[in-house]
Amino acid sequence: MARTIAHLGPTGTNAETAALIYKQILGESAQLRPYNSINQSVRSVAGGETDLAVIPVENSTEGSVVMTLDSLWQYDRLQIQLELVLPITHSLLSRGRGLEEVKSVYSHPQALAQCQQWLENNLPDAAIIPTNSTTEAIVLVKDNPGAAAIAAPRAAKLYNFPILVELINDYADNCTRFWVVGLKPITEGRRVSLAFSVPANVPGALVKPLEVFARRGLNLSRIESRPTKRSLGEYVFFMDIESLENQPHLTRSALEELSAYTEVVKVLGHYEVREVDRATVKRIS
Amino acid sequence: MARTIAHLGPTGTNAETAALIYKQILGESAQLRPYNSINQSVRSVAGGETDLAVIPVENSTEGSVVMTLDSLWQYDRLQIQLELVLPITHSLLSRGRGLEEVKSVYSHPQALAQCQQWLENNLPDAAIIPTNSTTEAIVLVKDNPGAAAIAAPRAAKLYNFPILVELINDYADNCTRFWVVGLKPITEGRRVSLAFSVPANVPGALVKPLEVFARRGLNLSRIESRPTKRSLGEYVFFMDIESLENQPHLTRSALEELSAYTEVVKVLGHYEVREVDRATVKRIS
Repeated sequence: MARTIAHLGPTGTNAETAALIYKQILGESAQLRPYNSINQSVRSVAGGETDLAVIPVENSTEGSVVMTLDSLWQYDRLQIQLELVLPITHSLLSRGRGLEEVKSVYSHPQALAQCQQWLENNLPDAAIIPTNSTTEAIVLVKDNPGAAAIAAPRAAKLYNFPILVELINDYADNCTRFWVVGLKPITEGRRVSLAFSVPANVPGALVKPLEVFARRGLNLSRIESRPTKRSLGEYVFFMDIESLENQPHLTRSALEELSAYTEVVKVLGHYEVREVDRATVKRIS
Repeated sequence: MARTIAHLGPTGTNAETAALIYKQILGESAQLRPYNSINQSVRSVAGGETDLAVIPVENSTEGSVVMTLDSLWQYDRLQIQLELVLPITHSLLSRGRGLEEVKSVYSHPQALAQCQQWLENNLPDAAIIPTNSTTEAIVLVKDNPGAAAIAAPRAAKLYNFPILVELINDYADNCTRFWVVGLKPITEGRRVSLAFSVPANVPGALVKPLEVFARRGLNLSRIESRPTKRSLGEYVFFMDIESLENQPHLTRSALEELSAYTEVVKVLGHYEVREVDRATVKRIS
């Protein structure tokens, strides 16, 4: 039976592009399933409704996608199978004939934030309207030549919508990390991601867990904190660790030692990272 | 001359409530100035257009307000004068006669996220529409009995709009930290907040700065990372440190030692924290 891959929909989102690239990597007739939110796509895997979900984790300009982190902490047994790093470009889509006609700009808050400087420099007086997805923005501006949407070039093609200005993201190297999550445990791969909580209000409570990795020469490539939501000042920490080649025992022993300094630890997966080039993204489009 | 206090507008936002409470604390005829974004209100202080800005920093349910952190890193010389912790309650505002009539819910993404569970349980089929502020949501649903806005009880009163359901935030202890920032350097207060960058891709690069505080028994009450935006994997770290009573020299020496392990350090302020009770918030309303 063909495997199912959940992603944030509707068609035309960057999450769908990442899911299509993963489908190519699988080389089988997998089926894509769009969901209304990241949380719903993660829950569909946890509940056995779909086999895999492709979810955005972090963007180079805007940082963590907090709904993804909160969802991974909320549901158990999920394991990262692979990371895909995609170059992300944004275009300004409009039926208007020039920038001077654009009075309002619609898009997902992440996309708006990734083009913030461009908008301030080129459309300082336009109203900025957040939407649930970049493709929802296209639907909303469809019949309004005084409005524009920020979306991927692929979405412009899919919805047959004209591009007014190409490449409006503030940073040329703008890219997003996507995780493929499923229930299959993976124990190989150079990257290890985990989440843990520490005892509240203990001086140095976070130093001990960090030392566990530093002492072994394991690089911490990222740390992120999220509130437990119960009370101000209580956090869950998310970490990415780089394993050392041919020394997987160091990572294993660090993870064992970690439990001495933490309350709850979840190892989210050992996995490989694959950088996707612009040409591959373009072929999908 | 009366001092000016910038805040996220328009009238009715929680930032305005915090600014009004700070005005009471000042006990003078300060003048409030609403801005369209947090970044604009911070820039107004950095550029000398206003004297102070009151900005949301962190919510107990939704975590950091990333635009505030990015703005404080972007502009120099800003110093935190005081922290106010406000209890935040959300209500569902609508002209409809019951929940069964509500087909769509409008609000600021932070407010929507703080009521996410309630919405899933009580309005699972409603369309969720993000807006630039809770008060913008009220304006948008004004003439539509099939729509509802999530906003503070104070906003309902200000805009003379009926409350359909009170207290819909998922966590009863929901609260938000606000910083009052200005250009006056403050060097006393139990809390110290700072931001710094570390050399990229050095194993343990973050451990050294943390040890500087842990070794002195100084508690790190919060750590947050934000991307430098240049390249995936490069971060600026934001930390809150609790000083020890009668031992300010420990904090001073830690800050001096810190520069040995960091690239750029910005001390955002030494300041006091004031918890505001529900009764005070209600009086402002």
